[in-house]
Amino acid sequence: MNLTPPHPLLYRPLIENALREDLGHGDVTTSALVPEHLRGLGLLRAKQDLILCGVRVAEEVFRLVDSELAFIPLRNDGEALRRGEVVAEVRGRISSILKGERVALNFLQHLCGVASHTRKFVEKVRDLPVKIIDTRKTLPGFRVLEKYAVLCGGGANHRFGLSDGVLIKDNHIKACGSVKEALKRAREKIPHVYRLEIEVKTLEELEEALEAGAEAILLDNMAPEVLKEAVRIARQKDPGVLLEASGGISLENVREVAETGVDLISIGRLTHSAPAADLNLKIVSVLTENIEEDFESR
Amino acid sequence: MNLTPPHPLLYRPLIENALREDLGHGDVTTSALVPEHLRGLGLLRAKQDLILCGVRVAEEVFRLVDSELAFIPLRNDGEALRRGEVVAEVRGRISSILKGERVALNFLQHLCGVASHTRKFVEKVRDLPVKIIDTRKTLPGFRVLEKYAVLCGGGANHRFGLSDGVLIKDNHIKACGSVKEALKRAREKIPHVYRLEIEVKTLEELEEALEAGAEAILLDNMAPEVLKEAVRIARQKDPGVLLEASGGISLENVREVAETGVDLISIGRLTHSAPAADLNLKIVSVLTENIEEDFESR
Amino acid sequence: MNLTPPHPLLYRPLIENALREDLGHGDVTTSALVPEHLRGLGLLRAKQDLILCGVRVAEEVFRLVDSELAFIPLRNDGEALRRGEVVAEVRGRISSILKGERVALNFLQHLCGVASHTRKFVEKVRDLPVKIIDTRKTLPGFRVLEKYAVLCGGGANHRFGLSDGVLIKDNHIKACGSVKEALKRAREKIPHVYRLEIEVKTLEELEEALEAGAEAILLDNMAPEVLKEAVRIARQKDPGVLLEASGGISLENVREVAETGVDLISIGRLTHSAPAADLNLKIVSVLTENIEEDFESR
Amino acid sequence: MNLTPPHPLLYRPLIENALREDLGHGDVTTSALVPEHLRGLGLLRAKQDLILCGVRVAEEVFRLVDSELAFIPLRNDGEALRRGEVVAEVRGRISSILKGERVALNFLQHLCGVASHTRKFVEKVRDLPVKIIDTRKTLPGFRVLEKYAVLCGGGANHRFGLSDGVLIKDNHIKACGSVKEALKRAREKIPHVYRLEIEVKTLEELEEALEAGAEAILLDNMAPEVLKEAVRIARQKDPGVLLEASGGISLENVREVAETGVDLISIGRLTHSAPAADLNLKIVSVLTENIEEDFESR
Amino acid sequence: MNLTPPHPLLYRPLIENALREDLGHGDVTTSALVPEHLRGLGLLRAKQDLILCGVRVAEEVFRLVDSELAFIPLRNDGEALRRGEVVAEVRGRISSILKGERVALNFLQHLCGVASHTRKFVEKVRDLPVKIIDTRKTLPGFRVLEKYAVLCGGGANHRFGLSDGVLIKDNHIKACGSVKEALKRAREKIPHVYRLEIEVKTLEELEEALEAGAEAILLDNMAPEVLKEAVRIARQKDPGVLLEASGGISLENVREVAETGVDLISIGRLTHSAPAADLNLKIVSVLTENIEEDFESR
Amino acid sequence: MNLTPPHPLLYRPLIENALREDLGHGDVTTSALVPEHLRGLGLLRAKQDLILCGVRVAEEVFRLVDSELAFIPLRNDGEALRRGEVVAEVRGRISSILKGERVALNFLQHLCGVASHTRKFVEKVRDLPVKIIDTRKTLPGFRVLEKYAVLCGGGANHRFGLSDGVLIKDNHIKACGSVKEALKRAREKIPHVYRLEIEVKTLEELEEALEAGAEAILLDNMAPEVLKEAVRIARQKDPGVLLEASGGISLENVREVAETGVDLISIGRLTHSAPAADLNLKIVSVLTENIEEDFESR
Repeated sequence: MNLTPPHPLLYRPLIENALREDLGHGDVTTSALVPEHLRGLGLLRAKQDLILCGVRVAEEVFRLVDSELAFIPLRNDGEALRRGEVVAEVRGRISSILKGERVALNFLQHLCGVASHTRKFVEKVRDLPVKIIDTRKTLPGFRVLEKYAVLCGGGANHRFGLSDGVLIKDNHIKACGSVKEALKRAREKIPHVYRLEIEVKTLEELEEALEAGAEAILLDNMAPEVLKEAVRIARQKDPGVLLEASGGISLENVREVAETGVDLISIGRLTHSAPAADLNLKIVSVLTENIEEDFESR
Repeated sequence: MNLTPPHPLLYRPLIENALREDLGHGDVTTSALVPEHLRGLGLLRAKQDLILCGVRVAEEVFRLVDSELAFIPLRNDGEALRRGEVVAEVRGRISSILKGERVALNFLQHLCGVASHTRKFVEKVRDLPVKIIDTRKTLPGFRVLEKYAVLCGGGANHRFGLSDGVLIKDNHIKACGSVKEALKRAREKIPHVYRLEIEVKTLEELEEALEAGAEAILLDNMAPEVLKEAVRIARQKDPGVLLEASGGISLENVREVAETGVDLISIGRLTHSAPAADLNLKIVSVLTENIEEDFESR
Repeated sequence: MNLTPPHPLLYRPLIENALREDLGHGDVTTSALVPEHLRGLGLLRAKQDLILCGVRVAEEVFRLVDSELAFIPLRNDGEALRRGEVVAEVRGRISSILKGERVALNFLQHLCGVASHTRKFVEKVRDLPVKIIDTRKTLPGFRVLEKYAVLCGGGANHRFGLSDGVLIKDNHIKACGSVKEALKRAREKIPHVYRLEIEVKTLEELEEALEAGAEAILLDNMAPEVLKEAVRIARQKDPGVLLEASGGISLENVREVAETGVDLISIGRLTHSAPAADLNLKIVSVLTENIEEDFESR
Repeated sequence: MNLTPPHPLLYRPLIENALREDLGHGDVTTSALVPEHLRGLGLLRAKQDLILCGVRVAEEVFRLVDSELAFIPLRNDGEALRRGEVVAEVRGRISSILKGERVALNFLQHLCGVASHTRKFVEKVRDLPVKIIDTRKTLPGFRVLEKYAVLCGGGANHRFGLSDGVLIKDNHIKACGSVKEALKRAREKIPHVYRLEIEVKTLEELEEALEAGAEAILLDNMAPEVLKEAVRIARQKDPGVLLEASGGISLENVREVAETGVDLISIGRLTHSAPAADLNLKIVSVLTENIEEDFESR
Repeated sequence: MNLTPPHPLLYRPLIENALREDLGHGDVTTSALVPEHLRGLGLLRAKQDLILCGVRVAEEVFRLVDSELAFIPLRNDGEALRRGEVVAEVRGRISSILKGERVALNFLQHLCGVASHTRKFVEKVRDLPVKIIDTRKTLPGFRVLEKYAVLCGGGANHRFGLSDGVLIKDNHIKACGSVKEALKRAREKIPHVYRLEIEVKTLEELEEALEAGAEAILLDNMAPEVLKEAVRIARQKDPGVLLEASGGISLENVREVAETGVDLISIGRLTHSAPAADLNLKIVSVLTENIEEDFESR
Repeated sequence: MNLTPPHPLLYRPLIENALREDLGHGDVTTSALVPEHLRGLGLLRAKQDLILCGVRVAEEVFRLVDSELAFIPLRNDGEALRRGEVVAEVRGRISSILKGERVALNFLQHLCGVASHTRKFVEKVRDLPVKIIDTRKTLPGFRVLEKYAVLCGGGANHRFGLSDGVLIKDNHIKACGSVKEALKRAREKIPHVYRLEIEVKTLEELEEALEAGAEAILLDNMAPEVLKEAVRIARQKDPGVLLEASGGISLENVREVAETGVDLISIGRLTHSAPAADLNLKIVSVLTENIEEDFESR
């Protein structure tokens, strides 16, 4: 898989904020108990089977805590890890490792959770010509990272937000009077770089949208048999139109939905309800002066 | 319940960030299709049974989008809502309501999710003298809100972060040489406002901690029968010591853990793995000039 | 014209920054010379014929300086004003008006400049089925406002930035090996909401792009006669493909380019080289206690 | 020329903002088409004759995008470049170069534009004892950089903003009652580090200002013959007074104004209406493993 | 006294930061003990004789905590208050008053401290033609407010920072080779709005500075008799030159220094060593439903 | 002494803000007079006996100004320095050293001031079993640094702010009806990590607090003989209760207060009224090309 992680400019403020949130006015326990010069080696491990996502985020967390920490990633985003496998090593001041530990884990447990949850959906339909895609139902501030986690899980992305794609919903149609009028206004005013997508709830609305020249159609909350009929109708009228199914998709019914022949299945719970993956970070050795030896003994 | 929501100063930047994230460089669909002067009424509804949390956050979202929107909350944080019940009304420019809709829902679905998940744990042990508490395993940047959601669900809070409570963990003990030395250093250096808590994994460590005068003890990952023995030992040595159980607590085993007699049960999944609650916002009427009539017909 | 100005969330930081930039540590002249209680009326006027853009930005400037100032806009964005016409009135503390004056004018002179410059291009081709569009050659930080100014001038917008549209340029093609390979990779990986646009410099590249199924083609720096031939070839192969001309377009040659039959003409100088429009703000009366009388005498 | 560029602390936020503006949620085209490991060499070139300004700004842009990029400046700010000359080389990840390209160019095209425009005015009066200076009519947020560009063009700076110089304008005079009273109040209250400058529109006001002891006088919008008379009067009364001409100065009339004998000519269009200079950045080689060879072949 | 407080844009971030600093993740004591609806009246009082400074800052603190609080100032900045006098009333939610209390007091105690300390110096030389001025030795981030406090105390301001005034110090002279060369370079390059000031430590340096045409001279750390001689020499050579004494000025010696005839005396301890003034805020009544009565009984 | 300075994440924004405050739009004097390439060596010295605090803060100041400056600390925080001793060396561009000089000194003079003032109190009671602690009466934004300075002086810290410790004051008691009720509510609602502290003004309130089970008691503004009696009563009822004296403590009476047997003495003036310590930074050599030689000659 060729995955490009988001640029750090896009999530660094999130990390700084998280570090300040956890650190408060300082780590009172560590300051009192751990001498500042004490160095050690920590291992970041998966405590369950998971799809990895967020290695560079974790690296950036430790870099922001202490630029002298060495973070050595051993695995890549998108890889499937078994319980117990090591994700990365962190070496340097123990007091710094402890300051970044929880924040790094909090990012990883969520991003690996999203990637792992997505992978389960993707596996269900791997042999079918359909893409599992995300929605805008993301945690406020995490969209760049969560959409990347969906890619790590093998899914694909829908539009990012309100400004980079056109999706005409029922409220828009109501305000315009009709599907036809809505698509007409959109075509006039919307930059040529966007494809026009419209949401329909019934086969009647679908036909109206097709006639008005929609380029992509979101089939909202339709039962599998209705979806199948919708696909048949749409393909007949316009073989090139993109068809997206959405609403109430679960691991139980995703395959049935995929078999209706839609191109895309969008699923909010990829991002908003993925259970956290379990990872931990343990200090495995406190370094003596003879550092080389110490590391070898691990 | 007497719930004090967090001060807006503590989460307003999170909302502004979320609005900018979703808005990008502007809502291209709405700008093209919905006239700016068009006004309407939207209803925010629960689409499943849930514990409400985040009403003021949603209000602040709409206020930041358009200070002329009227947001009228009909229910309070902490209340149990049935599927279909209305949480709040929003009146004003439709284009503004649509700009804030997804962000407000993204906050609510997560916070109601945490509150509802917490409530399930709390219900399981309602008749026992034990508190269900959270951890630092929260989504980066959301700790203030998630900890409030735990309160809405009927739980209680552990320390907020590294600076407002002392929790001595295995790594700290390793760095100090012994439980006794760790507690000694802590007592010397830590401000008098904090109670000293230490994490132990075995009954031996527990005894050492009790002898060294720990005021609260986290019993980490102990089986129920071990926990029960730990409680017996601790109560005998120091009736006033606080006992916290942690590690692998689920809805299935929480009651068994509670029955061991611990004072506190801390559960990471309250915050990191609560499934989102389902809510939506629908424009139920587009306002004509005779606004009063329009609203009455609803 | 139905123009929706950008949401203030998107440019308010720009204004705050501009106010702090101009204000420094305080307006030393006004503080020393103008009593704080003195109130007056200022008029914001066009000092040349121009297309108006930025009225709400100016309003926000004065609101941020002093929320008690009354800013009464008399004209709308997108309107053509004659030299001497009044854009808006500002009433309240003179010291506040003077603090906001230069910043408000600096925004207006630039935005009206862009709108007025765009209008000149638009007028040249008004009877032809072509759109005048902008580029990413904007002043850093001003893209939302400048792209809105282009709309006020009667132009249309290209993609906003790197994330909300696909534009494959020569460097991308080089990295992929061929136009065909580039379009193939794009189709696989890019969210379905974006239309694929590719830049070509020769008729050979154009044919390759058409064969590979490009949905929009940027014809870069072609002479009018070559453009005409390009349009002929493209329309023949794919009547639905969008054709954009770009490179070296001036008021002198824009009509010739438009007459080649392209759909879009993109012009960097709309935003990066529009001369400022001339506006000023004059205090026309210092208010005596009998305010009503004072205003009437104006 | 001994030019000190502004400290990066003063414009780094502007760059970060510009990068986030252009990057949005990520460069979708480059992410899909260009492998992250691919490295190359880009050349930044002048595409027209220009005065260079902003080399360190461009360097900082690329450093913020990717600290591993090597940016090698070949020319200095303030130098006159011929069309085609290379400004700088950029080596490293092609995906990083492409992410920074447009932002770096947008800064350079504007700053070189201002410097080049300024130089034209300066050349017109090079043999005369007069300085060409800027105004506060700058693009919001760009004042530090634009005023530096004026220096690169051979001009000089007026006060930066409202807090670092005293300039008494007509509105201030109105509020004080008279030129004399205005200068009296100023002298009492204004820190001793500032020189007092006052704006006059007529010869009568000039005489009043001279009598009241103004140290610098802005002669606003006076015709050349009036200016000449103003200079004569002023020099007679106070040989040390600084005289500044302003209002409607163009390349056509700047020499005539300079020949009146004023010390300073301030010109808003240096900053607000300078046409962008044309520069581009081209990837000239994609690096193979044998990097040295590759660079030599350029 | 005609005092213009700084614009809130210049210190609002300082207040927001201070509120977040004190509030942390929330006021745990007040949240637990004080019902949110409980309303009351608090009085802000001087607990010692002091010069008032910071009333609008305190008002802004309470406004940012809770925009529904009513803050009614009873006294003005610059006034001398006696111990026990009321500065302002605050009415509204008690929980809000308690959240803002400490932050408001922390600003006031410092600003009143600076104003009161300054007043003591000013009183010592009230009958002499000399100004007591501040320095750049201020608390990081507080310069705008502290320089305003100096005005409230009856002092005057030196330049604000490095950018709004020229002060040539020994290090600059060393880098230039001589006083003459330093003044020559300054005159060439520095915007005409600034007066040139140079620091000298001996009478020889003074003479050199006068010959080179310095407009203001800082006489650093000279004993009173040397100062007297310096004044005599300077006045003889240039009656218009401004003379500033600095270094080791205390309440004990300030009059002796003033009597040497210098124009300005600059004193770092006005801002960096002023002891805090004592003020407090007490809730004087908890409001019953009959609010009017309640207030009357006070 | 084992002192852990605060993490730079917690004060870096304060430094950036301070640098921007002092720098304004640039150092006009240095830019005009000091060539950018000129390098030198500066020494940071104590100009009075003091307790050192803030070495890493100063280092960070110079690092943010110019990452190529070498800052070599020669002494550690918490050490007692004699007048004239060197704190640190700074080597590199003189223009950079001059830009950071005043900001670094402004931090140091305040932090060393607080540390030195604290040390005086600590010395007075060194042989007694009592801790000198700080309060929330700190300069807005400086709490992290000032509380660290108190540690450097040999003192200890009270709670940081409103969120990390419980301190029930008279206003809280009034709102709850009684000391007993206040402590009851606190125990129910407050996280188990905090110890409950309550403020009392009389011996009657003290007894009530002891009966209600307070864990720490602040004895506010009691005369020494009353304090002594309070200690006797409290120790009798609960040997483990912590006793804190506060209110009007000075260097004159601190020993008398300490001898009453209290555990803690909290003193606002440690932070809000500590006079600045005197330090300076002098360029001791301007580097010639033969750098090594130059440094040796120092």
